[in-house]
Amino acid sequence: MQDLNELTSRSGEWLSGGGREADVVVSCRVRLARNVAGFPFLTRADDEKRKEIEHYVKEKLQKTQVGQTTNYWDLQELSQVDRQLLVERHLISRDHAFGRGPRGVAFGPDEKVSIMVNEEDHLRIQALRAGLELEEAFRLANEVDNDLEKEIDYAFSSQFGYLTACPTNVGTGLRVSVMLHLPALVITREIDKVFQAVSKINLAVRGLYGEGTQASGDFYQISNQVTLGKSEEEIIENLSSVIPQIVKYERKVRQTLLQSKRLVLEDKIWRAVGVLRFARSISSEETMELLSLVRLGVNLGLIQDIPITTVNELFVLSQPAHLQKIERAQLNSHERDEVRARYIRERLARNGR
Amino acid sequence: MQDLNELTSRSGEWLSGGGREADVVVSCRVRLARNVAGFPFLTRADDEKRKEIEHYVKEKLQKTQVGQTTNYWDLQELSQVDRQLLVERHLISRDHAFGRGPRGVAFGPDEKVSIMVNEEDHLRIQALRAGLELEEAFRLANEVDNDLEKEIDYAFSSQFGYLTACPTNVGTGLRVSVMLHLPALVITREIDKVFQAVSKINLAVRGLYGEGTQASGDFYQISNQVTLGKSEEEIIENLSSVIPQIVKYERKVRQTLLQSKRLVLEDKIWRAVGVLRFARSISSEETMELLSLVRLGVNLGLIQDIPITTVNELFVLSQPAHLQKIERAQLNSHERDEVRARYIRERLARNGR
Repeated sequence: MQDLNELTSRSGEWLSGGGREADVVVSCRVRLARNVAGFPFLTRADDEKRKEIEHYVKEKLQKTQVGQTTNYWDLQELSQVDRQLLVERHLISRDHAFGRGPRGVAFGPDEKVSIMVNEEDHLRIQALRAGLELEEAFRLANEVDNDLEKEIDYAFSSQFGYLTACPTNVGTGLRVSVMLHLPALVITREIDKVFQAVSKINLAVRGLYGEGTQASGDFYQISNQVTLGKSEEEIIENLSSVIPQIVKYERKVRQTLLQSKRLVLEDKIWRAVGVLRFARSISSEETMELLSLVRLGVNLGLIQDIPITTVNELFVLSQPAHLQKIERAQLNSHERDEVRARYIRERLARNGR
Repeated sequence: MQDLNELTSRSGEWLSGGGREADVVVSCRVRLARNVAGFPFLTRADDEKRKEIEHYVKEKLQKTQVGQTTNYWDLQELSQVDRQLLVERHLISRDHAFGRGPRGVAFGPDEKVSIMVNEEDHLRIQALRAGLELEEAFRLANEVDNDLEKEIDYAFSSQFGYLTACPTNVGTGLRVSVMLHLPALVITREIDKVFQAVSKINLAVRGLYGEGTQASGDFYQISNQVTLGKSEEEIIENLSSVIPQIVKYERKVRQTLLQSKRLVLEDKIWRAVGVLRFARSISSEETMELLSLVRLGVNLGLIQDIPITTVNELFVLSQPAHLQKIERAQLNSHERDEVRARYIRERLARNGR
């Protein structure tokens, strides 16, 4: 059994800073919703039934290839901090972490793929990749899906496609999300135009942790809203054509800022470095804001002695559950702010200047 | 003739950080107001008369010992930046810098003594010392006064004492000021109590540049209000007994802060260091605020790699006229903010960390 503590020494592959358009696109995610034929949807399943479903899926999982390369975690056995840790790494949703009843998640050491069991659907397969690599993420998710389908009889209708607990997912069961870092559009308040344009073409904009969460650190998730009546390829193509336009827009505004307000921008960015390197107490929120500016600075070539991977990792590792795992202690909010400041300081000190 | 540019490579002796109670008392100043018998007060003198007075004083000055160790500067011949430079170094008052008519100032390379000619009175002798060294400052001013009195026939009444343009100075012509750094009293808002207590015993509280100026960087000047009917010794004793109480109060509150709010205090102080070390543009006002916190940090032993002399010097050298002299260019406010940030950065980078 893998130790969850291990996770705190690194971030998932999707935060490597690689992939296409990595200056703006942090990562992309492809998620497939699947249910097992012969079992009720979870909305109609009591704990005993849920247990039965979990057992069934777990057992089948072990027979598949993906079962060999992942570990399965029973969420009911994990502490709250551990579950929060998995949320902070985008391996499970908030609902899954803080829901109830028998449920679990399987993922491997590279964290490219995770399979949530008994979230909203019996199975939620997700593949995460750094940068704008939708086809690759889709290929990965598809591979796992095909692998599982050899063992599991999915609930499927020839008329509607895959059947899901929520009608919005019926059809392909596919949700494709792209996490974008849009600091320049936020600074110049051009971001609202993007939101308006995006919502007109039935794409949703969400915060850092998906549905119902706020944007922080200028990160936004853009994803498809509808799946019914569309093919997987159409959905992916739709996003693949829209995202590059937003990326181009953000880049253009970054250059405009650099040309017309270079000093103001540099000052903002370097002050962020200064505070992160010297603060003795810092909230999660302020950290996100400042890291966002540092990320912008690195991507604009203004900061050269902090690798982008350090910045990306700090976004994840400076979060509450990660800090508590690193410290191996339960910490209240004030204690976390102090530990966070120290952790960031030490981390950045390793990178010169 | 000494070059004013030289001044920008160092600060005056009074900013050495030495002297008694130097953690709270930055410097003390003793000023003597004198007028020449047989000439009208300046309020009644036209430019021709002022010229005559200046000539007379200058000529006499050359025959004295203090005349040998100081240089005389004709303020009408100095640029506005040069005059501002002298204000920033506390060698002349604002009124003297931006007044009109024939006037000047004499001071030596150590800047311990300056003699303003045709400020409010024909002569204003001032002695500046680092720390709480009132007797020493008085001794210095007195020495110059005696020296000048050998050549100049002062306006003196056996009934009132020295006659001055403003009645508040009649008598000894003495004003004693102490510049205090009171960040802890400001943070805890205990400072108002000090002001109330001080004003009850006829002492005045003023900002960094004397009458009519605002406190900045938590610096306050405390000085005697009245001189008529009091001896020099009484005035000095009065301040010598009051100031140590304020010093004790400030120190007590610093320790209380350190014990009860150490993290908050350390965070404030180190963030100030961070911003000063990384900002790309910074106003004079923000600089004062942040340097004040750094000064507190150094005096509390929290910061160990920045010498107090560096902090004290930055207070002076980061001011508008100094920056323009250092850059040898006229700079507008935005340009100064940029140059100031660079100058502070480079200065602090020399001190490790």
